[in-house]
Amino acid sequence: MTQPTNVGFVELKSFADMDCSIAQCIEVVGDRWSMLILRDCFLGVTRFDEFQRRLGISRNILQQRLAKLVDAGVLNRVTYCEHPARYDYRLTERGQDLWPVMAAMRQWGDRYAAPNGPPVEIFHQGCQSATYLDFVCGCCGEKLHPGNVTALPGKGRSGARLPSPHVNS
Amino acid sequence: MTQPTNVGFVELKSFADMDCSIAQCIEVVGDRWSMLILRDCFLGVTRFDEFQRRLGISRNILQQRLAKLVDAGVLNRVTYCEHPARYDYRLTERGQDLWPVMAAMRQWGDRYAAPNGPPVEIFHQGCQSATYLDFVCGCCGEKLHPGNVTALPGKGRSGARLPSPHVNS
Repeated sequence: MTQPTNVGFVELKSFADMDCSIAQCIEVVGDRWSMLILRDCFLGVTRFDEFQRRLGISRNILQQRLAKLVDAGVLNRVTYCEHPARYDYRLTERGQDLWPVMAAMRQWGDRYAAPNGPPVEIFHQGCQSATYLDFVCGCCGEKLHPGNVTALPGKGRSGARLPSPHVNS
Repeated sequence: MTQPTNVGFVELKSFADMDCSIAQCIEVVGDRWSMLILRDCFLGVTRFDEFQRRLGISRNILQQRLAKLVDAGVLNRVTYCEHPARYDYRLTERGQDLWPVMAAMRQWGDRYAAPNGPPVEIFHQGCQSATYLDFVCGCCGEKLHPGNVTALPGKGRSGARLPSPHVNS
């Protein structure tokens, strides 16, 4: 296994020009409307008119964003009426896997921008509790936070996108 | 405690016009540059020129985004040189608390958009493992996913932003 290294900005310069999984995720969800559409998908909304009414978004922009989310493979468009053609938009597995992103954003907003308390709470059916997400180590179960992790170059680090000639200047 | 309800899109119509913690978080991090600046902050970058070089962003846009992040209270601007004036940009506690959002996005990107493997891995200092985040119930520790949670109206649900007259049409 790669040994840990302290992460300083000199050492990680090259990461900027590399494949970046955060950037890839932002490609899909990194605009406000796409994020709010996905939020509504997780709340059970599936139909164009319902997204449109809830979001107060123009039909044209909504159509574009839904098409983008379908293209990205996070939503499936499923016909529920042939004549006239009507569709449900449903989260794929890839889309469902964005749930932790939504949940982490919601939790941050609850903490810092919800002076009257959370507008929405999550209820865990397993233990029958109104709860919150803990972010824990997949290996040992300890809580993870920026102070107890180190970023390391991974095997997907692409040599083709290593530093520009300016990096060491 | 509020009893759970099944979440259908009819029932949750009103959420669209309410305070929404996801929307509040998007206000802060919901543009690509802000997100990538924060990514770099978590990798240890603190200085204007280094952000600029890593991101390939115009100085003008970088200045705007950094100012927005400082205004939002997620970064502090700390003077490290008086003449000429030079600053470090450092994550506040509010900023550090965005780490789960970044981590969840990275993990999604690793899964779906990193065919050669993760460009960056996280190493947990506690158990000395290259690891990943699990998203677990803060009450019982069981893994949470969209299939075992229910969204409930929270106490911050604001009557002032309840549905428009069109909602029940």
